[in-house]
Amino acid sequence: MTKRIAILGSTGSVGTQTLEVVDQHPDHFKVEVLAAGRNVDLLEKQVRKYQPKLAVVADQSLADTLATRLAGAQLPTTIMYGADGLVQAAGHADSDMVITGIVGSQGLKPTLAAIEAGKTIGLANKETLVSAGHLVMEAARNKGVDIIPVDSEHSALFQSLNGEKRSAIDKLILTASGGSFRDRNREELRNVTVADALKHPNWSMGAKITIDSATMANKGLEVIEARWLFDIPYEQIEVVIHPESIIHSMIQYADNSLIAQMGLPNMTLPIQYAMTYPERMHSPAPAMDFSKLWTLHFKPMDLDRFPCLRLAYESGRAGGTATTVFNAANEEAVSLFLKEQISFLEIETLIEQVLHMHDTVSSPNLEAIMHADTWARQQTIARAARLGQQ
Amino acid sequence: MTKRIAILGSTGSVGTQTLEVVDQHPDHFKVEVLAAGRNVDLLEKQVRKYQPKLAVVADQSLADTLATRLAGAQLPTTIMYGADGLVQAAGHADSDMVITGIVGSQGLKPTLAAIEAGKTIGLANKETLVSAGHLVMEAARNKGVDIIPVDSEHSALFQSLNGEKRSAIDKLILTASGGSFRDRNREELRNVTVADALKHPNWSMGAKITIDSATMANKGLEVIEARWLFDIPYEQIEVVIHPESIIHSMIQYADNSLIAQMGLPNMTLPIQYAMTYPERMHSPAPAMDFSKLWTLHFKPMDLDRFPCLRLAYESGRAGGTATTVFNAANEEAVSLFLKEQISFLEIETLIEQVLHMHDTVSSPNLEAIMHADTWARQQTIARAARLGQQ
Repeated sequence: MTKRIAILGSTGSVGTQTLEVVDQHPDHFKVEVLAAGRNVDLLEKQVRKYQPKLAVVADQSLADTLATRLAGAQLPTTIMYGADGLVQAAGHADSDMVITGIVGSQGLKPTLAAIEAGKTIGLANKETLVSAGHLVMEAARNKGVDIIPVDSEHSALFQSLNGEKRSAIDKLILTASGGSFRDRNREELRNVTVADALKHPNWSMGAKITIDSATMANKGLEVIEARWLFDIPYEQIEVVIHPESIIHSMIQYADNSLIAQMGLPNMTLPIQYAMTYPERMHSPAPAMDFSKLWTLHFKPMDLDRFPCLRLAYESGRAGGTATTVFNAANEEAVSLFLKEQISFLEIETLIEQVLHMHDTVSSPNLEAIMHADTWARQQTIARAARLGQQ
Repeated sequence: MTKRIAILGSTGSVGTQTLEVVDQHPDHFKVEVLAAGRNVDLLEKQVRKYQPKLAVVADQSLADTLATRLAGAQLPTTIMYGADGLVQAAGHADSDMVITGIVGSQGLKPTLAAIEAGKTIGLANKETLVSAGHLVMEAARNKGVDIIPVDSEHSALFQSLNGEKRSAIDKLILTASGGSFRDRNREELRNVTVADALKHPNWSMGAKITIDSATMANKGLEVIEARWLFDIPYEQIEVVIHPESIIHSMIQYADNSLIAQMGLPNMTLPIQYAMTYPERMHSPAPAMDFSKLWTLHFKPMDLDRFPCLRLAYESGRAGGTATTVFNAANEEAVSLFLKEQISFLEIETLIEQVLHMHDTVSSPNLEAIMHADTWARQQTIARAARLGQQ
């Protein structure tokens, strides 16, 4: 049976790899919705190739450009734009599954719309659960919707949990590569440049997530995501540094048995698993070659070396809007760093300052979450300006 | 609900660790049958403590000794002996599960008796499947009996297969510590002593299995066992050297995802898992401590360095009685080595000679298997005598 797919963020890293999986299994998947941001060139090619029912871009002028380029191409494709377009894309009647491959808390409303419409979710937008985990998971429970992680760590946990009972989980152990600066001490981080930070040792991703890997904020977001996805308290979620990124994460069970999911770092595998679950099919991901020598290292996480991870745990334990603020402050701080308006270490400084100023709202509704998100972004920008004056 | 347990080989390594698990969960397990060999001292203590319905020893004189010692102790225990006693122990009406912890092909008849009586099998006697895999698995299928592996590698595979489909298996990857001589080359193996061979780097086991680890015959037996337990052809079973024995084995699936079971080397974990499956409970096995540094190595298996593993694959592919002969020749050769009647490298020489002389019987019945077993033992002893004369 063909599964009909909607891809939010089709021109990004997760989106293009989702299309690789579709290309591998053309009989199993049909792309019905493609939503991108500003990359009209690539989206145009994708629309011509996959002929979706709906294509979405960031704004009206981009929509006009796309419409002009596709004029006369005899496609079944409606073109929409903006946040409303994204929500339409998420809930489109002709899809069975939505891959949420857009970055940041802008993914929240479309994800909720997809759940509301009863779609299976392939969740690659971790900020959604970080911002509003309790709302998203509650909506999914109410609608009986499966949320299948696409992130490699959470896919690893999901695969390692297959056939087991959640009540038997003793601990989730997320592995962390350590990011581009794993071998530098705090002193050596003072004057690192944007270009330095964008060199991830194990793979190539978008700029935001690469910086998040270097600060370990990304692992913090993953810890919070895992808390919601698997309904496990923070005390039972551990992070260990594993520079080779071969073991993607593991679960320790009540009997101290560890089940781990392993493989070469390759995003097509977790993406495909989310799309084929509970089946497995041949994938574009290469196999690990055991005719070669392999050495895997593990070393303990150091929360003093990586304060962003400590702040993630602290905001997670505080609950309510605290994780919304952690995420929003981080998004803005990373954006300022990428624009070279603050230094690398000021990312963590800003997150910590904004978190300390925040009065946490427990069990917030969507409005309170959006409010906390906006407030945190404003505060981050305001604080950043003051950092410059000091 | 209390599970009633029969232990074949209660004074051995697997048996005593099975009792550790029982001690950990006294409300969940009741020991109803204890079968040992010649260690009457330990069996006496076990009988006094667990008060089983039946106790079995190797021969009549040991049975008399045990009866005398237990006289007047007001126990509910019947005492039996020999091969018949073992078969009675396996099929005893008061047990739900039989742990087959005896070593060698003597485990075959009791295992078949336990299956015939509808008992769940905790299989720690790998020679049973090596000798007569097709008969044992067919009997289990006919009786609807679960055979749950206790061997750490097969338990790892069984755990890694949990919730997955066998049709999605691409490869079983068994890990091998490499045994006591893993860092020696062939030349350095010429004059090794029994004492050298008994020093296993990672754990303490019985003498036979420790020698089998050093020759890699043990991994060969495990490959054949895996072929039957998981119904996977030899082409899809691989062995990789992993000196630390932390990853106990792994499964590569169709999508090139690897699922691995890990933990500190400790037999109580797979024993308990077999006993509690599909549940997991707290176990006596310690957790892996990720506040420490860990380094895991993997290197390719070398069949020229370890000819016993090559011979296991060859006998497996030949099928029928060939694996029976591989196992019987190995048992006798190891016994001769332990008695210092042959050298370490002559173990493999004898197995290869006897295998080459054997006319394989396809789809053998139990009689043909017993015949091949006896023949192989006689040939091994005869050939060993000739080795001495050369």
